[in-house]
Amino acid sequence: MALSAHADVLVDNVIGLTPDGKGGLERFTGLLIDDQGNISAVYHDKEKRPKKVAYKVDGKGRYVVPGMIDAHVHIMDTGFAKMTLDLSGARSLEEALVQVRAYVQAHPDRSWIEGNGWNQANWGLDRMPTAAELDRVTGGKPAYLSRVDGHAAWVNSAALAAAGVTESTADPSGGRIERAAGSRRPAGVLVDAAQDLVAAKVPQPRPSDRDTAFGEAQLEFLKQGVTALADMGTTIQDWQAYRRAGDAGNLRVRIVSYARGTDDMALIGGSGPGGWLYGDRLKIQGVKLYLDGALGSRGAWLKAPYADAPETSGLPRMNETQLGNLMSRAAIDNFQVAVHAIGDKANETVLDTIDQLSQTYKGDRRWRIEHAQVVAPADVVRFGQHGIVASMQPQHEASDRTMAEARLGPARLAGAYAWKSIAATGAPLAFGSDTPVEPPAPFVGLAVAISRQGADGQPVGGWQPQEKLTLGQALAAYTSGAAYAMFAEDRLGRLARGMKADFLFVDRDVATAPPEALRQTKVVETWINGQQAWSAARGVAKPLTSGKAR
Amino acid sequence: MALSAHADVLVDNVIGLTPDGKGGLERFTGLLIDDQGNISAVYHDKEKRPKKVAYKVDGKGRYVVPGMIDAHVHIMDTGFAKMTLDLSGARSLEEALVQVRAYVQAHPDRSWIEGNGWNQANWGLDRMPTAAELDRVTGGKPAYLSRVDGHAAWVNSAALAAAGVTESTADPSGGRIERAAGSRRPAGVLVDAAQDLVAAKVPQPRPSDRDTAFGEAQLEFLKQGVTALADMGTTIQDWQAYRRAGDAGNLRVRIVSYARGTDDMALIGGSGPGGWLYGDRLKIQGVKLYLDGALGSRGAWLKAPYADAPETSGLPRMNETQLGNLMSRAAIDNFQVAVHAIGDKANETVLDTIDQLSQTYKGDRRWRIEHAQVVAPADVVRFGQHGIVASMQPQHEASDRTMAEARLGPARLAGAYAWKSIAATGAPLAFGSDTPVEPPAPFVGLAVAISRQGADGQPVGGWQPQEKLTLGQALAAYTSGAAYAMFAEDRLGRLARGMKADFLFVDRDVATAPPEALRQTKVVETWINGQQAWSAARGVAKPLTSGKAR
Repeated sequence: MALSAHADVLVDNVIGLTPDGKGGLERFTGLLIDDQGNISAVYHDKEKRPKKVAYKVDGKGRYVVPGMIDAHVHIMDTGFAKMTLDLSGARSLEEALVQVRAYVQAHPDRSWIEGNGWNQANWGLDRMPTAAELDRVTGGKPAYLSRVDGHAAWVNSAALAAAGVTESTADPSGGRIERAAGSRRPAGVLVDAAQDLVAAKVPQPRPSDRDTAFGEAQLEFLKQGVTALADMGTTIQDWQAYRRAGDAGNLRVRIVSYARGTDDMALIGGSGPGGWLYGDRLKIQGVKLYLDGALGSRGAWLKAPYADAPETSGLPRMNETQLGNLMSRAAIDNFQVAVHAIGDKANETVLDTIDQLSQTYKGDRRWRIEHAQVVAPADVVRFGQHGIVASMQPQHEASDRTMAEARLGPARLAGAYAWKSIAATGAPLAFGSDTPVEPPAPFVGLAVAISRQGADGQPVGGWQPQEKLTLGQALAAYTSGAAYAMFAEDRLGRLARGMKADFLFVDRDVATAPPEALRQTKVVETWINGQQAWSAARGVAKPLTSGKAR
Repeated sequence: MALSAHADVLVDNVIGLTPDGKGGLERFTGLLIDDQGNISAVYHDKEKRPKKVAYKVDGKGRYVVPGMIDAHVHIMDTGFAKMTLDLSGARSLEEALVQVRAYVQAHPDRSWIEGNGWNQANWGLDRMPTAAELDRVTGGKPAYLSRVDGHAAWVNSAALAAAGVTESTADPSGGRIERAAGSRRPAGVLVDAAQDLVAAKVPQPRPSDRDTAFGEAQLEFLKQGVTALADMGTTIQDWQAYRRAGDAGNLRVRIVSYARGTDDMALIGGSGPGGWLYGDRLKIQGVKLYLDGALGSRGAWLKAPYADAPETSGLPRMNETQLGNLMSRAAIDNFQVAVHAIGDKANETVLDTIDQLSQTYKGDRRWRIEHAQVVAPADVVRFGQHGIVASMQPQHEASDRTMAEARLGPARLAGAYAWKSIAATGAPLAFGSDTPVEPPAPFVGLAVAISRQGADGQPVGGWQPQEKLTLGQALAAYTSGAAYAMFAEDRLGRLARGMKADFLFVDRDVATAPPEALRQTKVVETWINGQQAWSAARGVAKPLTSGKAR
């Protein structure tokens, strides 16, 4: 079935760059696209073009790269973050409180105050914020503010009261209620599973809210040049929003879903991963499981205690038997398994479990470890076994650097954000943003990947610079590697004959730009399936045909 | 988008019959069908046919009627009933027990014994069967056997033990645990909401089981000449099975879903009824709510006590405020509301609630009352108000007749299964089978509708014969009326220009057949969307094109 009404389109006179599928990069100057949105020819230099095409796009010497593939996103959270209070810009506790007060006053209709993006590490604060501080600016309304990593929530007294969380409430399994010094009184921050105590009381978004959130997220991806993405933790509600978009012809980016747990996996996928829907725009591929939390909130599960909190080594969300059971449940129906593992103990445990399961579940499984953030040197080499995919996020390195040094101390940094070491084991790298934790900005990610530096150029020479990647490695991880990680390398991730015509016009040559310039790359046009989906000049483009599944 | 590859098809030389859309019936002799599966012309007598068509079907004088529309089915239950023990043929308790024993022996792999279709009213038994009786034939395995109407379950001691149902278990709200005479010991039958106590312990079907069940149900509908149906109580699991069928190009019949409660309504439909999917094969239109139970199990909510059980008047599943709240929740987002009401008190309560809601929710709402089985004469006239649709099932009358006389006594029979009286108020009638409660056999339903007699021709002259319908009324209720009831009269229910080419070849003239012959009508071919979907000679036809939504 043709989703596009056009016949052959020739995109010519471009300075094109694509992974060549053999570990290198390749230049090209033109693309021929058929009426299914597939690339039917790639031209180099002055190679002869067809005389007759339905439509010709003169690239006028502009730069073309493949559409970026973000291997780890939270689509709906990204959209909802845009609909709630964004505290990621607050540089101090006081600034955050001012923003909350303004938001409360601007939204008198909201029964709960919801927000996200705060990070006390940016506030020069050596402690978590408190409920009492939040009470001052929330006018008695309950408030629930997610930390930037989603692994902790800052709540006020009204929210604690609404949820019945008191000094007699025990920490739930896999979670922790921060307590006021020297008492059991909840202080106002809930870590990991403890967040659910209050989150369960926050009113659920309506379906129309979900549709709005999806639209917001999709627009952001198009702007950033992200044409395909792996959604990590798709719920049935999320899936229904994606299907509504697909049914209405509004699904532009390509989504590969990893369901949030095995129940939603079976509910969404039935008895196995589904095929592509809506012209290769949507499929359910696997399941996302969480073994531990995050480093910032000390939820990451470490082999040894935190350097800056020797009383804890973090905590697993389930034990090894439970993890193995859930992974088996998925693997038996050929669903792909993606396990969140941040701490070195969590990574070791997933590796151990994959070792065991690989004896039973043979074939091309592509077990994914999400984040693989802190790995013991002895475990790094194990990534090269069993076809494990390392799904990592360069931007986290730059954001976490100082915090990671504090949490881990110097000895464990060698295995932290160790892209090059892991890639050297033969494990395929798939890069992503973890949006909304970081902006879904692949060119920022590329710049970090080759420099190990932040936007400020710090540290000079790069942090743990032995882990820098080449541009070719990094670009592959955002394109062909990410496609491979989602079982989509047969159609996505490279600009080559037979692949989908998903590409970007960008304002500079990413192959040669130094990191500080690469980071500033502007997307000029985003093309998906041989059609312009978005342009900086005109915003979202109308599809040539509706693409509506009827 | 064209779902069928063929160009114009001429179906000619038939003796056609269709509702004329003005309350009467109309004959025709030929149909022209375009490549979208729509009727582009209807020919009468020797009216001139186009000379050039891509394909011509010579009807050879066979009879053609519209595809039947079943206004009230339970698709997945129908499919699952075919996968579990069917006790509907048992003519005595002893026969039922023999069947259970045989099933247990034939299925050693089943951890639970599941079945359905039993009806103690057919067993010459003036009591419900017991757990002790079932224990004798189940070899210690837990057993859960649904009564024919789905409003009661017969369970054994192992099932009661698995669910922890004991003499100290209280009747749940909206349900009743049958107790052994003179004690509180559970006797083995659970009525209405009490069924859930044990049902919750029965292993859930896997997605592949659901796909199999859907396929079984769909085949049955095609065989019976049912081309479209209203699914009453679609869960998200059911919906996903329908979508899997649609995504894979295996959805042949047209399904209009009424979600099982408002949560699944919002989850399936989002912020309002969805459009047609898969070439007009699937849509979510509204919500199904249950106000009471069934007459057979004395769960129907009556104004006065049961004639044969003066200690009870049945029971509502929710109070009027709850009903109003749920109906508002649906109506505010323009979902259509279908409320199950069997007893006269339940019907009065729904009518009262519609009276109130109609002041707020204006416009074309088509409030549906499902079954409307026992209505007080004073309430009958109220069906003509507010555009209420009476969704009724002729076969129930024939099956229930003797039981209804016992339950209701003579005084209340005037308002029982009162099709003609209700139609006379101007309320649109929509007929269905309630399958798996009755077989989805529209020609049996038509025969009952015009005769008020069972398969045995009893009672002579018909039961409460003043409620007999004309063939034209009855056929409309199974076609154009049922289409109207599901907001599909713009494309389904009549064979006329612009309508979908859903029709049947049948082996006799239903317009003139006497009831006993009408009942025996055989479907020879079932056509949907201008394509043969099933034929008695060759079974399910392969679609001309996949119809796959990509």
